[in-house]
Amino acid sequence: MRQLPGGVSVITVGRGEERSGLTVTSVSSLSLDPPTLIVCVYKQSSSWPLLLKHKAFGVNVLRADQQAVAERFAGRGGLRGPARFGDEPWITLATGVPLLAGALARIDCGVEETIDRHSHAIVVGRVEAVQVASFGEALVYWHGKYVSSARDAPIAQV
Amino acid sequence: MRQLPGGVSVITVGRGEERSGLTVTSVSSLSLDPPTLIVCVYKQSSSWPLLLKHKAFGVNVLRADQQAVAERFAGRGGLRGPARFGDEPWITLATGVPLLAGALARIDCGVEETIDRHSHAIVVGRVEAVQVASFGEALVYWHGKYVSSARDAPIAQV
Repeated sequence: MRQLPGGVSVITVGRGEERSGLTVTSVSSLSLDPPTLIVCVYKQSSSWPLLLKHKAFGVNVLRADQQAVAERFAGRGGLRGPARFGDEPWITLATGVPLLAGALARIDCGVEETIDRHSHAIVVGRVEAVQVASFGEALVYWHGKYVSSARDAPIAQV
Repeated sequence: MRQLPGGVSVITVGRGEERSGLTVTSVSSLSLDPPTLIVCVYKQSSSWPLLLKHKAFGVNVLRADQQAVAERFAGRGGLRGPARFGDEPWITLATGVPLLAGALARIDCGVEETIDRHSHAIVVGRVEAVQVASFGEALVYWHGKYVSSARDAPIAQV
């Protein structure tokens, strides 16, 4: 699956001192009506019980220059829980989960359903609120590296 | 969801004159043990009944220069079924579904389960065989455009 590029998002859960999050590349749109999306979450992650408890999660689509955020929420440096949130400004919208003010997109979701399969759960989220930036490149993970969506780069030249 | 970049894959189903496919950005790894992945498929697509009938599908991860293949399988030009497969060489591996010889990766999957939700189905695939190219850039869809994974482009300069 390393050959499959994925947009990088941070999934945020909980609130206050009981908050955590994880970095994923598995967010996909499911349906437009109603607006739902899915994400695969490892059931051994520290975020999983908080997602179940609060029945909500945030999808923070990262910008190309937010690799450091991706790495913190991937557990690099051993940071856990609230320590992963760093010094960036965080906001809340509908459900109360923390959302990254500087993200390319912030999607606030209620948990519609969790479907346990093997080591992971497929989480179906009902979109409750969305905020989207009007410009900026996206962070993409591919082949074990972070790259940019490079929207303006001609394909023939790369 | 337009802000979320996704690797572009063609899902192939059926065999012989009863074959079809569709372009998606929703393929994600689910578990490593067993090796499974998920993809969201619109239940009104012409590929859906063939996926159910043969209980198998191929994931063809496209190269940056295979935008024309992506567009054919997205239905551009009105092509349907076998006509979408064009002149490229196709092979089979384990399940018998057609796999694109020139793809960046070819993943042959048995259908482990289909989970109907809203307009789409979440398809859980059990990986039966994989072939991966040793080099090449990936095709990424972002903001309504095809771009390249641009692995070697420094993020700071794009």
